[in-house]
Amino acid sequence: MNIYDVSRKAGVSIATVSRVLNGSPNVSDRTRNLVLEVMNDLGYTPNVFARGLGLGTIYTIGIMCSDSSDPYLAHAISYLERGLRTHGYDSILCCTGNSLETRQKYFNLLRSKKVDAIILAGSKLIEMNPMDNQYLIDASRELPIMLVNGYLKGENIYSTVCDDRHATHEAASRLISSGCRDILYLYTSYSYSGVNKMNGYQDALAGCGLPVREKYIRQCPKDVTSARDLLLRLDHSGLSFDAVLASDDALAVGAVKYANMTGREIPDSLSIIGYNNSSYALCTDPELTSIDSKIETLCNTTINTLMGVFHGSNVPTRTTIAADLIIRATTKF
Amino acid sequence: MNIYDVSRKAGVSIATVSRVLNGSPNVSDRTRNLVLEVMNDLGYTPNVFARGLGLGTIYTIGIMCSDSSDPYLAHAISYLERGLRTHGYDSILCCTGNSLETRQKYFNLLRSKKVDAIILAGSKLIEMNPMDNQYLIDASRELPIMLVNGYLKGENIYSTVCDDRHATHEAASRLISSGCRDILYLYTSYSYSGVNKMNGYQDALAGCGLPVREKYIRQCPKDVTSARDLLLRLDHSGLSFDAVLASDDALAVGAVKYANMTGREIPDSLSIIGYNNSSYALCTDPELTSIDSKIETLCNTTINTLMGVFHGSNVPTRTTIAADLIIRATTKF
Repeated sequence: MNIYDVSRKAGVSIATVSRVLNGSPNVSDRTRNLVLEVMNDLGYTPNVFARGLGLGTIYTIGIMCSDSSDPYLAHAISYLERGLRTHGYDSILCCTGNSLETRQKYFNLLRSKKVDAIILAGSKLIEMNPMDNQYLIDASRELPIMLVNGYLKGENIYSTVCDDRHATHEAASRLISSGCRDILYLYTSYSYSGVNKMNGYQDALAGCGLPVREKYIRQCPKDVTSARDLLLRLDHSGLSFDAVLASDDALAVGAVKYANMTGREIPDSLSIIGYNNSSYALCTDPELTSIDSKIETLCNTTINTLMGVFHGSNVPTRTTIAADLIIRATTKF
Repeated sequence: MNIYDVSRKAGVSIATVSRVLNGSPNVSDRTRNLVLEVMNDLGYTPNVFARGLGLGTIYTIGIMCSDSSDPYLAHAISYLERGLRTHGYDSILCCTGNSLETRQKYFNLLRSKKVDAIILAGSKLIEMNPMDNQYLIDASRELPIMLVNGYLKGENIYSTVCDDRHATHEAASRLISSGCRDILYLYTSYSYSGVNKMNGYQDALAGCGLPVREKYIRQCPKDVTSARDLLLRLDHSGLSFDAVLASDDALAVGAVKYANMTGREIPDSLSIIGYNNSSYALCTDPELTSIDSKIETLCNTTINTLMGVFHGSNVPTRTTIAADLIIRATTKF
């Protein structure tokens, strides 16, 4: 029996129970009395069960990611670890790779350590098939689940996401305004974030009355050489394109290398926009126009939300952060 | 009183005490009897104190690094975390930044958690002033300290290092053989690894009868734009150089950008060699010749050594791994 049972029995949110336990003034007398009554009925003892109220906590958060050496995730881990530490929390890191089975195994391992919460960093940790996320929903009855740039509906699941759809919509629209008509879209994975990015691209085309063509949407492994070689093949096959919009900077770097190799002028003959505004964006000649997906803000917001959950504040289950388009030398605008 | 007291009183190494406790055959009867006698005298109870023998362990290792978003360290964290997990150990990550004070604070925090060992990833965590490392030597009496590409002398301190000196010696020698005479050396920090790399460069010049000139040895922040701008300034000041050897790929990328900006032909007018063979090396046109510092091997060896310490095997306190020179398009050989 725990705070979640109290929440269910009283028919109020976990945050409300936390607020009652914390003596927060933001609770009506009626609700406070109801919660206290249920606690009494259940024989609930907050100082044993109230994880996250500073009672019974081990001050340790599990952080899961697919691969901490990926530049985007490496920054996420760094910001999360430092942010949690300023609040006095340790981080247990768990790199799970891409298999759902391993991920579930490590998730359960973290739970068995009685961590105070689990943060899932990266949209790829949420499966597209809802059945495959049931273990997260089940677990969220016992501890808060925090998603960094992923989304899953659930009462004790908190998402902080970048507005990827709006970001690629704007980027593609700017490409079209600058005269591009055949925009190749390169993506790495069909995740929550991946789908949003692709939808933004498609919306922008449709909004300008341009056709959405399957052959202009291509999946590619997240590395420079694969992207370069894919573009060489597409070019060789006779596909005509005047812009590349990529879901990751590594793919955009590959596009720069393709252009340099084939003598295409950037941006006059080929415009290129990357995603994440990583250190890759400054490595190429010309330097990449790229979408800044605000990973630091996402991580800080995730931690603030988590601290809010722990302190029984009224926190949103979903926070959306706007991206920025950082304009450099691979676009005509 | 613990295994370290037994080691001191018996005048044998901690590994030897572990071997006796493990019933290893690699101990002479004389030594075994001595150790058992000391244990008896001290009233030592292995199942309470013998951390690392699977008795009293919490199966958790502290990993410290200055910044887990640095590409080299991000890979180290990833390899260490996964490697430890295959042995059933959790990793508590701690990003300390560059201040000694913060590092000591977090080190003590990890110790207070009773972690089974602490891994320090990256040569910058070891101070050049021996006094400043005394806290590590003191702590090593109580738990194993593992250094990834750092070195510190001490009985229970284990280093796995890349042979950086040999690597830069070879790289500089190859540059000289290919006709370069004015080789600029760019470095980011004056750490154990940093000093070794610089010594290798100086040795190579001296070995070929070339002068070692202060003005050809320059410190630079570890980012692409700083390196590019430094080279533009040096060029503008009239310093003549026909090669750049850098202690990190980010600096070498900056050198490529300087050359592209000023119209110098790579490698005919300027040869460039980076360090770490990171994903940066493939981002530039032309792609970077770079020294592969074998971070995966360093991490795996560190973990194998640690497991050896835990199991009382006879492990070396220092293991040196040879680097590889990966030849691409920024050199004439």
